[in-house]
Amino acid sequence: MNGAESLLRTLAAHGVDVCFANPGTSEMHLVQAIDAVDDTRGVLCLFEGVCTGAADGYARMNGGPATTLLHLGAGLANGVANLHNCRRADSPLINIVGDHAIHHVAYDAPLTSDIESVAKPVSAWIRTSRTSEGLALDAVDAVRAALAPNPMPRGGIATLIVPVDCAWGEGRVRAKAPGFDASVAKPTVDDAAVASIAPRIDSDTLLMIDGNGLTEAGVRAAGRIAAATGCRLYTPTFPARVEAGPDLPLVERLPYFPEHVMQVFASVRKLVLAGSQAPVSFFAYQNLPSDLVPEHCETVRLAHRHEDVEAALTAVADALDAPAGQGAGGGRPEKPEGALSAGNIAQLIAASAPENSIMATDSGGGGAAHPVLQRSLRHSWLNLTGGSIGDGGPIAVGAAIACPDRQVFALLGDGGAMYTNQYLWTAAREGLNIVSIVFSNRQYNILEVEYRRLGINEIGRDAASLFDLSNPDLDWVGLAAAQGVPGARASTCEEFDAALGRALASDGPYLIEAVL
Amino acid sequence: MNGAESLLRTLAAHGVDVCFANPGTSEMHLVQAIDAVDDTRGVLCLFEGVCTGAADGYARMNGGPATTLLHLGAGLANGVANLHNCRRADSPLINIVGDHAIHHVAYDAPLTSDIESVAKPVSAWIRTSRTSEGLALDAVDAVRAALAPNPMPRGGIATLIVPVDCAWGEGRVRAKAPGFDASVAKPTVDDAAVASIAPRIDSDTLLMIDGNGLTEAGVRAAGRIAAATGCRLYTPTFPARVEAGPDLPLVERLPYFPEHVMQVFASVRKLVLAGSQAPVSFFAYQNLPSDLVPEHCETVRLAHRHEDVEAALTAVADALDAPAGQGAGGGRPEKPEGALSAGNIAQLIAASAPENSIMATDSGGGGAAHPVLQRSLRHSWLNLTGGSIGDGGPIAVGAAIACPDRQVFALLGDGGAMYTNQYLWTAAREGLNIVSIVFSNRQYNILEVEYRRLGINEIGRDAASLFDLSNPDLDWVGLAAAQGVPGARASTCEEFDAALGRALASDGPYLIEAVL
Repeated sequence: MNGAESLLRTLAAHGVDVCFANPGTSEMHLVQAIDAVDDTRGVLCLFEGVCTGAADGYARMNGGPATTLLHLGAGLANGVANLHNCRRADSPLINIVGDHAIHHVAYDAPLTSDIESVAKPVSAWIRTSRTSEGLALDAVDAVRAALAPNPMPRGGIATLIVPVDCAWGEGRVRAKAPGFDASVAKPTVDDAAVASIAPRIDSDTLLMIDGNGLTEAGVRAAGRIAAATGCRLYTPTFPARVEAGPDLPLVERLPYFPEHVMQVFASVRKLVLAGSQAPVSFFAYQNLPSDLVPEHCETVRLAHRHEDVEAALTAVADALDAPAGQGAGGGRPEKPEGALSAGNIAQLIAASAPENSIMATDSGGGGAAHPVLQRSLRHSWLNLTGGSIGDGGPIAVGAAIACPDRQVFALLGDGGAMYTNQYLWTAAREGLNIVSIVFSNRQYNILEVEYRRLGINEIGRDAASLFDLSNPDLDWVGLAAAQGVPGARASTCEEFDAALGRALASDGPYLIEAVL
Repeated sequence: MNGAESLLRTLAAHGVDVCFANPGTSEMHLVQAIDAVDDTRGVLCLFEGVCTGAADGYARMNGGPATTLLHLGAGLANGVANLHNCRRADSPLINIVGDHAIHHVAYDAPLTSDIESVAKPVSAWIRTSRTSEGLALDAVDAVRAALAPNPMPRGGIATLIVPVDCAWGEGRVRAKAPGFDASVAKPTVDDAAVASIAPRIDSDTLLMIDGNGLTEAGVRAAGRIAAATGCRLYTPTFPARVEAGPDLPLVERLPYFPEHVMQVFASVRKLVLAGSQAPVSFFAYQNLPSDLVPEHCETVRLAHRHEDVEAALTAVADALDAPAGQGAGGGRPEKPEGALSAGNIAQLIAASAPENSIMATDSGGGGAAHPVLQRSLRHSWLNLTGGSIGDGGPIAVGAAIACPDRQVFALLGDGGAMYTNQYLWTAAREGLNIVSIVFSNRQYNILEVEYRRLGINEIGRDAASLFDLSNPDLDWVGLAAAQGVPGARASTCEEFDAALGRALASDGPYLIEAVL
């Protein structure tokens, strides 16, 4: 058995058996091994940013890591933007990056590059294998690194660089060690922290929750704490995954712009961090602070992001002898009629989306749907985490592969979706139940908003052209059809609702271009 | 005047006035400055790999650098694959990468990343600006770095990271220094090297030419040397730019696969390197050497890549008192009929392409057109250099902006073109005269070829699916139309020829999907 096969067999033995691949020549033995190892599912993506985003989405829903299969430094580089989002999501992920044979690197052939340097900004663990016999051991270390608790903001990304001679040489499979646990380790929060913080939570407190504090159990525990103390519950602006619905306690999402965050904090005297960082401005602005916690507000940490936030919240609720929390309430909204808007789209999705849908978003319009959906149906909300747009479509692909029985929505801006439009093809090939909704405002709207925040209300022609996605208009229905995804364009609520009905009635992917 | 405007005014004063932009919030002052500085042309690209590839294409045709405008580490990372090709092309290029305000970085807001680490593998020069007043001085240093001769294989890429407070603070324009020369410096080769090498060139010699040895003057000088000595003329497999045509001496291109390179060298006793490296295998193979120069062949260096190869070749020709060389000869081929093939496509392009066309390619099919075109029309050939596919379309965009009066062709594989399909939109917006020809074989053909080279002739279902771009078929005409580019699909020579006629008769971009 060669090293490549030993690598994939060892990963599969450790529960890592989905590979989002965009291989090249130096990965041919690994491709061959995908054939040999029945347990491993290879999913072809036509751009590496789709591979890395999909692996992140898979991990957010599955808990354990998927692998990516990438072609040297250039292939890895194409995946770095979504790896950046992945590390901010704290998702476990294993990059397998092919490289030249060890003896060949010194010849500086055209594709040779410094792969470890490319990997560094987005990896918690990096190794270049040195022998085919050791490759499977390297794989075990990669899995352990991806699952290890990591207090640093590099999440659980392990990058294993595989010179082709390590893939083609003789390899040895490594069995799963006794006691190996294929899930991310979450250190328990100290009892003393729970005991000291629980009695101090009151109605002037904002409890900010992230990490596994946003599971169903975590959210229910937070709701109990709110019921007992009157505190307010928030997620950060960009949580990786939130479980929400009318029967679950309402956890609000912190606004994006610093002024709005400061308004939230105006009446807050105590900030309790449960897996979250203290809020900072997304970008710096002249005359606005970076640190958005006002001086009158005391900050206390209950749990770090990498710790077991769910257990810590439950312990606090138990210490308070708290009753069950109140659900967010609400219910399915009436369907709006007439002209389409981001708000109307949220209502229409909320009216029709199946229970237990998964919502992946990296757009402003998608973000605006969050509060409506929270009160309408049980769902998992997968958010952009690192601010690098072009994440929502790939995340949806990974989520759909992790959860084939659930309906997935991708709520995308037109600007963001262009970066990784190749996700559509993978959705078509794999027959994934993804309804993509493109908020087609034909501009980088956030840039125009930010530009006006500079105090410039007269936007010159050249600047305007750099925000403007019209001239020519992107035809999203055409772009999807060209990649095998059926779709429809909607300009009114009635058209949108009809398209959504068709999308939900059909198997496989569908795209709705919502012209705003 | 703020720092952003001082930066763009200083760059424009130094002849750097085209900016391929995909900006975000931290670049808003730079966008504002594009409005304020009339000399600067901003070109919006919807993916950063288009920005970097286009800037490379611009530099290959223009000689001097363009800038890219990118959004923090994630935006730069999306451009790295084509920056890898750019550094292998030795093109000058200036990346302007926005960053958080200096005081904001410590807060680790979501988009914060280690931008210098992302830049390192592809940059000859990196600087993070520290003051708004110094930003224009930083720009001057970036221009000088991009134009400096660089013997290292990082080419002329300068990456200037601009914290937003350096953009919004008070800036000072820097005037062009007396004697500043806005072109890449090319050190002259020593007379002694010319004198010692010239008399040793004979009919057993292979003269391998790269860098500015492949200009019209360089190629003519090489032709004189061949006429005087009987030596053979070759480019490397992946030259950045070659001037070619029936009236110019024929310079053959070294084959891709190592066995074929070794066949070329079987009868070669002396290899003279004129701006080229000695040939090495693109990938490593078991039982094949990395170094493809056989032991019986002596290697002599006339000029390094960064040196003035054109002048060195001319000096050798003069030292030999060589006559004018023979042109490649040939002429426009007959148009083939019937079923379409990569070979037939080359003939059809060669029959109809206007004189002085620019040919950008990163595909096997495109590469196969090279020898046919050399004998058919004068053209500039822009090749993939670093092996990272997805370069041809963006290169064509940059070339078309540098040379608005010339017809540009992009000869693309379907796999490669998907990575950066967003180039089509920029071609449409800017009305660029680019005829894109997609060799649509609906597979990563090279991978199947390489797979068979492993000795595996029975390709399993899972492996085959990872080479296969069908299921669903990509509809290239639809993908282009969705981005504003008209096109047609062709399965026969007659259909292709008719489509090419329409493409050449119309203004602006056009795409032909050649179904193979």
